[in-house]
Order: sequence, then C-alpha cells, then structure tokens
Amino acid sequence: MSAETLSLDDLRALSMRCLTVNGCNEPNAAAITRAVIVAEGDDCASHGVIRLPGYVRSFRSGFANGDADPTVSQQAPAVLRVEGDNGFAPLALERGYDKLAELARENGIAALGVANTHHFAAVWPEIEAMTDRRMCALACTASLPVVPPPGGKKPVFGTNPVAFGWPRDGPHPVIFDQASATMAHGAVLVAAREGRELPEGVGLDSDGNPSTDPEAVANGAILPFGGYKGGLLAMMVELLSCALIGEEFGCEASKPRGPPGSAYPGGELLIAIDPDHFGDRNGWIAHAEVLFAAMTAEESVRLPAARRYAARARAHAEGVSISESLLAEIRELANVA
Amino acid sequence: MSAETLSLDDLRALSMRCLTVNGCNEPNAAAITRAVIVAEGDDCASHGVIRLPGYVRSFRSGFANGDADPTVSQQAPAVLRVEGDNGFAPLALERGYDKLAELARENGIAALGVANTHHFAAVWPEIEAMTDRRMCALACTASLPVVPPPGGKKPVFGTNPVAFGWPRDGPHPVIFDQASATMAHGAVLVAAREGRELPEGVGLDSDGNPSTDPEAVANGAILPFGGYKGGLLAMMVELLSCALIGEEFGCEASKPRGPPGSAYPGGELLIAIDPDHFGDRNGWIAHAEVLFAAMTAEESVRLPAARRYAARARAHAEGVSISESLLAEIRELANVA
Repeated sequence: MSAETLSLDDLRALSMRCLTVNGCNEPNAAAITRAVIVAEGDDCASHGVIRLPGYVRSFRSGFANGDADPTVSQQAPAVLRVEGDNGFAPLALERGYDKLAELARENGIAALGVANTHHFAAVWPEIEAMTDRRMCALACTASLPVVPPPGGKKPVFGTNPVAFGWPRDGPHPVIFDQASATMAHGAVLVAAREGRELPEGVGLDSDGNPSTDPEAVANGAILPFGGYKGGLLAMMVELLSCALIGEEFGCEASKPRGPPGSAYPGGELLIAIDPDHFGDRNGWIAHAEVLFAAMTAEESVRLPAARRYAARARAHAEGVSISESLLAEIRELANVA
Repeated sequence: MSAETLSLDDLRALSMRCLTVNGCNEPNAAAITRAVIVAEGDDCASHGVIRLPGYVRSFRSGFANGDADPTVSQQAPAVLRVEGDNGFAPLALERGYDKLAELARENGIAALGVANTHHFAAVWPEIEAMTDRRMCALACTASLPVVPPPGGKKPVFGTNPVAFGWPRDGPHPVIFDQASATMAHGAVLVAAREGRELPEGVGLDSDGNPSTDPEAVANGAILPFGGYKGGLLAMMVELLSCALIGEEFGCEASKPRGPPGSAYPGGELLIAIDPDHFGDRNGWIAHAEVLFAAMTAEESVRLPAARRYAARARAHAEGVSISESLLAEIRELANVA
C-alpha cells in the first residue's frame, strides 16, 4: 500500500479544510483537528485522520451539529457539566478543562460530566489535558453494545474505555487508556475486511459460541478483557458515563442513530484530583518516581504511553505516513486537488 | 473436616472477646468484628474469622496498635484524611464515613485518604457504607509486592483491589471488589498448603517462567488479570492509594514488617459521588435499573454481589459453619473453654 509522508502542520491544514467545507464551524473543526492530529502523531492511527470521513458523514447528514456551541455549567462546588449541543466531544471537553482544574485545585477533587456529544476520539487526550495542569485524572465513556455482561452472551456494554493519568515533572505523564473489551470494535471490522482470523478468546458468534471469524464476531459479541473482571469494569463505565450524567445507555437505543460508522451520542465522565491536597504536598511528584523506577528496573518494562511519546517525537521531526487511498478520500472530501 | 454452626451473634461475641483479651480496645475490636462478621456472613471466609489469629498476632507483637485512636481531618473542601494511628483500617474508615458522605452531598464528589493503618479486610464493606448513604463509590488499596508490571517478571505491585458500588432503591446495591491479580495471594498459599496445582496463567516461578506449582508461584509472582490491562490497573492503585496519600508503596519496604501473616501498613483511597449533582437528580436511580434489567435479561447473568447477598440472608437465618480446628484456635486465643 503506497503512502505519503506529510508534516503535522500540513495534515492539520488538510483536516481543518476537510471539516470546514463540510458543515463544521471553525471552533469545532479546530478541536476535532487537535484530537485527530494528536492521535495520528502518537501512532494511534485508529483515532487519527481515518476518522475524518466519519466526521464528515455525521455533519453532512445533519446527525451531528457542526456549529455546536457547548456550554459549561456548575452543578455543585466540585461538579461541572458540559451540554454538548449535539456536537462532537472535543470542543465540549476543551471548554471544561480550565474550570475543572480550577475546581480540583480549590476542592481537591472535581468531576466533569459531558452530555449530548458524539464520541469518536481516544480518551487519553483529556487525561493529558489534566496532567498538563498537574492533576491526576480518571475518565471513561460508553459506546454502542458489543460486550456481554459476565455470565452472558448477548452484548449489553460498549467497549467502554477507562483512562488514567499521573503527572510528572519533566518527563511525559504516565497515562493509560484501555478498552474494557479484549479488542476494539473497529479492529474486529478491519480484520473482517482483511479476512484475518481473530485470536482465540476475543469473541462469540451470534449464537454465543466462541469464534475466531471476525464477521461472526462483528455480528455476535466481543468478550471483555480478563473475563468477568473486565466485564464489571465495563458495567462501571456505563453507570459513571451514562446513568450518572443522565445520558442513555448504548443498550437503550432510543436516540436516533446516524449514518453507518457514526459515533454513539453518549456521556463521558472526567475526574480530576489535585494531589497537593491529600497529605504529601511537597513529596508526591518525587515519590511516584520511586514506583516508576521499580517498574522499569527490569529492562523489558516500559511505562504506559512510552511508545506514544516516542512516536510523537518522530512525528514532529519527520511527519507521518498516510496511505494514498485514505489521503485521496480526505482530499476529495476537502475539495483539494 | 468437621465444622460447627454458630449464629452471627455468637460469632460476634467470640470475635470481640478474642480481640479484647489480646490487646485491642473496645472501639477497635467492635470495628474489626463488624468487618470480620460481615465477611463471614457474606460467605467471604477468606476475610472472615480466619483472620482473627493474624489480628491477634499483630496486637501481641506490638506491630499494630490495638488502642488506635484514628483522627479525621479535612484537607480541602472535598478531601478528608484519616490518620490511623497504626491501627487496623476498619475503625479509621468508620470514623470517616459520615463526614465523607456529607462532603460528597455538599460538593458532588469527595475523597477520603486513609493513612497509617493495616489492611486485612475486604474493600466492599466501605463501598457498602457509601451506597447505604445513597452514594456511588470507588475504593482501592495496595499491598505487598506479588504482581509484576506489564512486560516484567519481578513483583512490584500488590494484589491491589479496585471496588465500586452503585446504590439502588429497595434491593441491595450493585458492588464489585476485585483484585488486579488473577488470584489472591492467600489463595495461592492455601493451594500450596493443600498441595493443589494452580490453573495455567496464574503465576510465574522465581525465574520468571510460567508455573502451576503454588510453592513456586508464592516465591515468584502472581500475574495480573487480563494481561497488561490488569497490570496497569494495579499501577493506578499504587498511585492512588500510596503516592497520593503519602504512604509507602509495597515495593519500598522501609517500614517495619510485622510477624508472619501481618497486614501491610499502607494507604487506601475512597471516593464518594453524589449522583444527585450530575444532571439527572430525579432519574438516576430508576435509570440504572434499565441497565441492570438489560444485563439480567439473560437468565445466566447475575448482578455482582448477588451471591454475597444470598449468603447474607442465609447466615442471618441459619448462622454460619466454621471448621472445628479454626474455632478451637480462636477459642484458645479468646481464653474460652
């Protein structure tokens, strides 16, 4: 598959144009572009520019609001809510970051609930937004049902990522962002398109039998990671990002569905914790390094996200490689030759 | 193995006597007894009266303080800290519950850090204390190193449970409390004593090779559940319950160790969330039932903790069965014939 290398600046300009000529206003296009470009640069191509056609379809069909004007309101001294105005999550989240960090700094801990937005992006960018503000952070979001509950065979939960981050002085923060499912739904679809068998233990067919056939699993269920424990984490994510926020569960499905490949219009919860308020104000940053040093005492261990940060440095220096076919599709959507 | 059935009241009286004649004052003995009896009644024998000899050893050796007088202080508008005075965690936690719920009710979210206590109990009792107060709750605590980090073979993390609960009207709350390790350390020791092989994938020997020999695994490492994802949850628990609170990681090991079988003197974090403040004040209780109904639409699915609640009802009606040998040991410690 032939590919072209673009600088992040050029890719950013293309993303902006692709979105703005397709019904997305400047602030939304800028926030989505930040989410897409950071993913592409960090070698998370699954959340990178490959999503642009999906964004465009959502705007063109009127399913998502490209002029969304998210509003932040304070629900309690330590709780914010962003009403997303049926737009995509990145702008809604960005509008809440500063205030969330301010509330965590004041109260020690604070939470932000995001409602009425569409989710197409990775969760670690919002974690990094908090670690950049010297906050420890936790976030989760739900999606359309693909994962069965523990003991069951029919999908009830989404792939339901949980993300966590811890700030550090100097080096990059320690961040993970992991689905409660063994495999992302998109990865199963890609395997189906490419005719690749799935590993054992990833999924069930529509009769509830274990299967390595990606087509069968796409129409059946993806298992949670680690058995019932991963399944219960997926349940927790539904409760925190939907029941708590007042958003529909993926399994309720009474909201309108968008065109094929659309994102789920659901909720997200982001919790920020200011470690300065828990009893080790001057020590916690250095103390955490003791743990990171113990982890990496074995040469085979890398801290989470280390691979992403290495990719980021490369992408800034050398640009990123995008397949010709995807670039052609995006350029056509963007009306550029 | 012959066993005797005791009412929970009789077992409670025995636990109180066993603790108070061995250097534990009345308030600490009552809190520990509550933790032990609720575990025994819920058929979690591993955290039940089998722990009493360990509590007694800790008091007799002076390793833990049986007269601990934990003090609660407010660190920030939404943060409490309990200084445990080198006692066991149950009394320290109980002293914080009402104030934690009050802060969550005021602020929407609040956190309690527990420092300088010993942990021998399950984590779900503190979650249930919060769901009883109509709060959603999250808790975690670390322990001595038995689990390697992702990519590694040498233990760095404890078994590091994460517990979560959601309150319900009428029926019992939905609660889970699950170790980040595939198997509890105690369960590996029991298998070693009984000469039972472990399942594949549970542990490594001290050379880092996969092993099903419980002796070898007890001297090696227990793997996290679900591969690297469970391992990163274990890391998160170390950061939230040790680095955040200002307590030592299990892997630092500069604190004095107690007699064999002693608990780790570490930290715990308990977060309470008042769902009334997140945007669906009158709806969230009923809304969550939609998810629980979707989960249990398949007959094979039970909500988490359902087995515990069934055991609890039986224990209240019929008492619990305790092995003669354990009872004899406890009665000897309690100086009762």
